Amino acid sequence: MSSEQERTLSVMALGGVGEIGKNMYVIQYGDDIIAIDCGSKFPDESLPGIDLIVPDISYLLENRDKVRGIIITHGHEDHIGGLPYILKQMGMPVYGTRLTLGLIEGKLKEQGLLGSTKTHVITEDSTLQLGAFTVTFFKTNHSIPDCIGVVFETPEGTVVHTGDFKFDLTPVNEESADLHRMAEIGKSGVLALLSESTNAERPGFTPSERKVGLHLEEVFRKAQQKVFIATFASNVHRLQQVVDAAFATGRKLSLIGRSMVNVVSIAAELGYMNIPDGMLIDPGEVGQYSPDKVAILCTGSQGEPMAALARLARNNHRQVEVLRGDTIIVSATPIPGNERNVSRTVDDLYRLGAHVIYGPGSSTGMHVSGHASQEELKLMLHLMRPQYFIPIHGEYRMLHQHRQLAEAVGVESENIFIVDNGDVVEFQNGRGRKAGKVPAGSTFVDGLGIGDIGHMVLRDRKSLSQDGILIVVITMSKATGTVLSGPDIVSRGFVYVRESESLMEQANGIVVRTLAKLQEENVNQWNIVKQKIKDALGKFLYDQTKRRPMILPIIVEV
Amino acid sequence: MSSEQERTLSVMALGGVGEIGKNMYVIQYGDDIIAIDCGSKFPDESLPGIDLIVPDISYLLENRDKVRGIIITHGHEDHIGGLPYILKQMGMPVYGTRLTLGLIEGKLKEQGLLGSTKTHVITEDSTLQLGAFTVTFFKTNHSIPDCIGVVFETPEGTVVHTGDFKFDLTPVNEESADLHRMAEIGKSGVLALLSESTNAERPGFTPSERKVGLHLEEVFRKAQQKVFIATFASNVHRLQQVVDAAFATGRKLSLIGRSMVNVVSIAAELGYMNIPDGMLIDPGEVGQYSPDKVAILCTGSQGEPMAALARLARNNHRQVEVLRGDTIIVSATPIPGNERNVSRTVDDLYRLGAHVIYGPGSSTGMHVSGHASQEELKLMLHLMRPQYFIPIHGEYRMLHQHRQLAEAVGVESENIFIVDNGDVVEFQNGRGRKAGKVPAGSTFVDGLGIGDIGHMVLRDRKSLSQDGILIVVITMSKATGTVLSGPDIVSRGFVYVRESESLMEQANGIVVRTLAKLQEENVNQWNIVKQKIKDALGKFLYDQTKRRPMILPIIVEV
Repeated sequence: MSSEQERTLSVMALGGVGEIGKNMYVIQYGDDIIAIDCGSKFPDESLPGIDLIVPDISYLLENRDKVRGIIITHGHEDHIGGLPYILKQMGMPVYGTRLTLGLIEGKLKEQGLLGSTKTHVITEDSTLQLGAFTVTFFKTNHSIPDCIGVVFETPEGTVVHTGDFKFDLTPVNEESADLHRMAEIGKSGVLALLSESTNAERPGFTPSERKVGLHLEEVFRKAQQKVFIATFASNVHRLQQVVDAAFATGRKLSLIGRSMVNVVSIAAELGYMNIPDGMLIDPGEVGQYSPDKVAILCTGSQGEPMAALARLARNNHRQVEVLRGDTIIVSATPIPGNERNVSRTVDDLYRLGAHVIYGPGSSTGMHVSGHASQEELKLMLHLMRPQYFIPIHGEYRMLHQHRQLAEAVGVESENIFIVDNGDVVEFQNGRGRKAGKVPAGSTFVDGLGIGDIGHMVLRDRKSLSQDGILIVVITMSKATGTVLSGPDIVSRGFVYVRESESLMEQANGIVVRTLAKLQEENVNQWNIVKQKIKDALGKFLYDQTKRRPMILPIIVEV
Repeated sequence: MSSEQERTLSVMALGGVGEIGKNMYVIQYGDDIIAIDCGSKFPDESLPGIDLIVPDISYLLENRDKVRGIIITHGHEDHIGGLPYILKQMGMPVYGTRLTLGLIEGKLKEQGLLGSTKTHVITEDSTLQLGAFTVTFFKTNHSIPDCIGVVFETPEGTVVHTGDFKFDLTPVNEESADLHRMAEIGKSGVLALLSESTNAERPGFTPSERKVGLHLEEVFRKAQQKVFIATFASNVHRLQQVVDAAFATGRKLSLIGRSMVNVVSIAAELGYMNIPDGMLIDPGEVGQYSPDKVAILCTGSQGEPMAALARLARNNHRQVEVLRGDTIIVSATPIPGNERNVSRTVDDLYRLGAHVIYGPGSSTGMHVSGHASQEELKLMLHLMRPQYFIPIHGEYRMLHQHRQLAEAVGVESENIFIVDNGDVVEFQNGRGRKAGKVPAGSTFVDGLGIGDIGHMVLRDRKSLSQDGILIVVITMSKATGTVLSGPDIVSRGFVYVRESESLMEQANGIVVRTLAKLQEENVNQWNIVKQKIKDALGKFLYDQTKRRPMILPIIVEV
């Protein structure tokens, strides 16, 4: 940070640039810091055993006295999933709309943080005074209700954070994004715009959510038996359209999947969903109705092996069965990395004789994205007319494409900053520049542990998973320095001992000879002995098998 | 197999149905067996440490005296990749076209199998008499030259295996698929058709390879600097079009990537590619030419981290550098599962300031599939007019879609068999039926080991990769049965000991107390002692960390 930070405005990402997920942004003016969102993301196969990834908040911990609060733009996991983990480390007031807070409070309760956390309900019309910041909001559309963009008025000028958005001109059960408010904001002058880039690679204009409803109802009407719809539990608009389609076609609706039940109850309770009385039935009751009078709304649209749809496809759900002739709608597009799981689930459903509607929403009409495509991103840039532009929420190529869109609508190239997590963009006297870095990165959650899994542990896990481990136990006499017992070699994940006795016997011989040689040479520092055993055994095993198991010599003195 | 197998015709898959890859099919009449193809596939993340998967050929090993040979339909890895591994276990004559054998012989040489293997060159006009089978062929189009379909005339009737195919009516550097020959085959009566299903989900007609050439040349012409093209090395037609585009635009061409150099030399030597003299330059010479006079053809179109394109993108190639303003063409569509690697590579290339053309071929025009889409699959079914139909080469939903196409063109539903690997379809007196199973499945190649990695070893590797391992070493006195040393607890992949000393001390205490308790109870069978330690320690660690490391007690007696 600059030495004059008390008089400068700084913007930085703690997560969400150069990646999809774990969004977290920080805006600071002098001694006042506000955080925006705190998301989580799931690890890929390169992080074995890790349950969840959340932002590294060292910078906030170092400056805890300056943090005035955190503003949550909406209730998706990549914006709220990390909240419980940072609130465990430092308390701060949490600001969000009603549905967003409803979803957050569910999480805080699970983690026993509800009592200790101050939450404040805001609406798109709220105004907050947080330190030097006057904070206002504007309504956006997305794949969950109650989404907001955030406007920070500061002595250096106005900074706008869009959150996730699309422009839905025929939205379901809510208002369209507030174009007029956005126009006013733009008119009154925007120093810097932070706008999301998830669909920056996608040409055109993202279709309206309403489009999905028409296709849903058509399928509901034609289906002769049960209809299953898998979609994201958080897509309340989609859930409402499923309810509407079921109602229009005289079907009862049953919910399967913990998060589905959870979201529907919260959304209905808070008035974000209208469910006709008596329409919802328990999974256990499904069998009591004629198949053409029932629909099932379930989780697992990404083929998650433990979620409802995959369990139904493997036919191991206690109460509901997929039967020949049933119709399954996968109302989602596979997120890169999930294709295999989705495909496996579709295969299993076909094996059961079901009729399956799957594939990208563009081809099935059963899904639309919640994110702005290129024309909408340009529309946002036009409305806001920012002096400076920082594309956020996306991997590098998406930020790059978004940069090109901004240039196309007239933002000065040198006023566009593509940043990495931790990069600080500083504004002073109306000029913006990249100015150094703050700590930022990934904090791994594994079981109850937060951040206690380091890269060495992960490296060990990876190497263990590749060729397993060989443990060599040798018992030495303290008195005489001679071998009392062993070497005993135990292997896990390498090869069956019984399938490779001779290999293990030879390995044993290698260790015995190595020890003998070392004794001749009077080498008796255990670390050297261990290293020599590792080297000799490692070379032997690689020559024999072209595999490199981890070798762990253990020397016990008695 | 039926007891009357000497008088029946049987068809079975040893690999390639219910999956993509490791294609291998078997046709048998009485005591005569012919194999078709022997592919390999790469493991997904569920098989840690495995290098390659090849078919389980137990059935052929049990019947080695009956095997008359193996026919290879074309030179792709999913059709030839397993060949060296089965030829190590049993010799058999190998039949293939010139390019196919050229690629196979390269593999056999690497594995020292060239001398011991009889290979026979065939053409689409060859006729083979193999036991009871009269075998003929027909030319097809695909993403590699010299592809054939196979016709087996048997006393029970004619069986046709299409291999991989598309219908390219304006092919590059070769003839179109032989429609007239296929029509003849169909006219003379086909008992059973085995047809590939890779693109059975895709509507329409796959575009001609020629379409790509036009787009390539356009980009070559416009590019102001170096042009890099990444594509499958085996796609010789594509390689030829890159050569043509380079020639038309006055660019020298350099090859990067072992398999690229390898395939180009084989294809050129056998006359499947025409490369103007003096056009090819070494990577080391690239710097000597003006950037607008050079093109680089490289491997890595799937973002494979160790392949040329990913190395270039990370800027760690010894001889060639990607510079700001260079153009990179990814002439391929990411195979499901590879999206992340491709995306990372594109991100890295953008970071270098390159202009990148990537994404599905349908949108970029830089790639077309080598597989028949729905209209072509129907065309094949029309031409062959089979009495029985077995969709092959595909995951279940693809086979299912192909079944529906066959029904649409008039094949009797009850005459269509969707089979799993190992299912036997038997034909007798003109009637076909499913008749039992033969052993079939996956053989894992890991280092030098073929099939020596069992599911228990894989289970160990997976559990090791999740939460690591704790080794508990205890030295006991044979004489007194008392503990001489330990418990010593060593962990790998669980947590840093130094980060969690107290946890390890408590763990130690748990073991000590467990041992004491067992001694009071005079329990001294080591297997029971070990189990008690596992249980007590496992429970303690799970309660403390919600993690389940593998626990390995080792008791040494001295």
